[in-house]
Amino acid sequence: MSKVQARVESALERLLPPAAIAPRRLHEAMRYVVLGGGKRIRPLLAFAAGEAAGEGAAADPGRLEILGCALECIHAYSLVHDDLPCMDDDVLRRGKPACHVEFDEATALLVGDALQSLAFQVLSDHRLADDPKTQLEMVKLLAAAAGSRGMAGGQAIDLESVGKALTVPELEFMHIHKTGALIRASALLGARCGNALDAKALAQVDQFGKLIGLAFQVVDDVLDADSSTATLGKTAGKDAKDNKPTYVSAIGVARARALAQEMRQNALDALAGFGERALRLRQLADFIVLRKF
Amino acid sequence: MSKVQARVESALERLLPPAAIAPRRLHEAMRYVVLGGGKRIRPLLAFAAGEAAGEGAAADPGRLEILGCALECIHAYSLVHDDLPCMDDDVLRRGKPACHVEFDEATALLVGDALQSLAFQVLSDHRLADDPKTQLEMVKLLAAAAGSRGMAGGQAIDLESVGKALTVPELEFMHIHKTGALIRASALLGARCGNALDAKALAQVDQFGKLIGLAFQVVDDVLDADSSTATLGKTAGKDAKDNKPTYVSAIGVARARALAQEMRQNALDALAGFGERALRLRQLADFIVLRKF
Repeated sequence: MSKVQARVESALERLLPPAAIAPRRLHEAMRYVVLGGGKRIRPLLAFAAGEAAGEGAAADPGRLEILGCALECIHAYSLVHDDLPCMDDDVLRRGKPACHVEFDEATALLVGDALQSLAFQVLSDHRLADDPKTQLEMVKLLAAAAGSRGMAGGQAIDLESVGKALTVPELEFMHIHKTGALIRASALLGARCGNALDAKALAQVDQFGKLIGLAFQVVDDVLDADSSTATLGKTAGKDAKDNKPTYVSAIGVARARALAQEMRQNALDALAGFGERALRLRQLADFIVLRKF
Repeated sequence: MSKVQARVESALERLLPPAAIAPRRLHEAMRYVVLGGGKRIRPLLAFAAGEAAGEGAAADPGRLEILGCALECIHAYSLVHDDLPCMDDDVLRRGKPACHVEFDEATALLVGDALQSLAFQVLSDHRLADDPKTQLEMVKLLAAAAGSRGMAGGQAIDLESVGKALTVPELEFMHIHKTGALIRASALLGARCGNALDAKALAQVDQFGKLIGLAFQVVDDVLDADSSTATLGKTAGKDAKDNKPTYVSAIGVARARALAQEMRQNALDALAGFGERALRLRQLADFIVLRKF
């Protein structure tokens, strides 16, 4: 894991515009939010799925590294915009002041906007699949995962839900969009870098990604209710304070934990046909569900 | 012109998610900002450049229509974010309440984010060039034009410039990014839909786009200083009120007008080798420099 994390960090360092190039403050802020932090869950999933994708012909790590950078750009942009005063109004992210606190609101807005553009620039500027047509499909997949029927749509549903008591199916619908879409896309895009899986195997990776994305959010809800700010690197207990419906508010901590375990098991079942090639994907499922931060 | 405008409007109507699909408020707001307004300058440039691109083999209008939609999504997103309180804090756009006024700030933020994603989804989801490799290059070109070294970067430079007296070269640097990058990309991408121009001809279209993008901004500055809010459909006199450096504040209305004319002439000169095929591009140059709104 630390090898992949270091590899992606170093590629991001290279792909982000240098802080010495105008507009300097914007580039400095982009580097501030992307570099030196985060668990890099999405690149890890992409690498693991890329490994699962080939029978002796796993996806090229050089391709996965670029894909990982694009995923992190989208993820970082969503965090920066999510922390803005008009959204979750949070001042702390990855143990540091949020972007709009360290810089200012307008810069944070533009940082998010420019990081989204950079994700698509990176994804189209390097060869990621044997066939450029496949790569265009990958661009489309990431755009759909980020857009109004993916991550941004999930944020909108989240906004509408403040103060409401949601049922578990309603919570699922929200999180399949908000967190799930990009996590799911990470696994699927990693697999597609390998270019060797048939439609059925891709659907299994997709199912794994969907379940693990959901489990990720369930665990996030538990941790928010159960951990300290110092451990999380972001403000703890914020969901309850903001009157946000979560798995914890809907079914309590104990049942939420059990639900995450169940999702993990279903995710592992989806990979039954993959044998040893899916070892890292399985390990990541464990990491996501058992993590403490 | 009205034929192209109607065509793009109808394609946008089709490509934007219906307001009946969840998240409804987000989709409603996306349609509010994109549909039923705007001069559609960028699609017009794309269509005109597509027409200039082929010797008896102009770009397919079906392709140009899709490209035009992607360009309008990026443009509309930039207006929505630009109007937010932390940016230009404007309440009026295209003669209607700005998005964050009609809806709310959080929705406006997400509308912009989702429209940017939609632009790349649209651009990768339809066949726009004979060769998918060319189309990937088009995705990259749009991403670069929108990002930190294009439009978003121009906004950042704009922010840093408030209250400063810029020289004409400094103003040019700002506007080549802020407005220029996307206008330039519009012409170049339109030409690439045709897939028939060599590098030299593409460079000429690029030069035309660069000059006309700059002229567009000079005229915008003159109109902001010289027109009524009712004519503009956005708040007039706002640059001076916000203490923003403009071509008018740098060199006065008369010299700014002359500069726009000069840029127009240079833009036309760049197209000297195109003959009749560039008729519409020339007409658009006139339209942009002579417009009254």
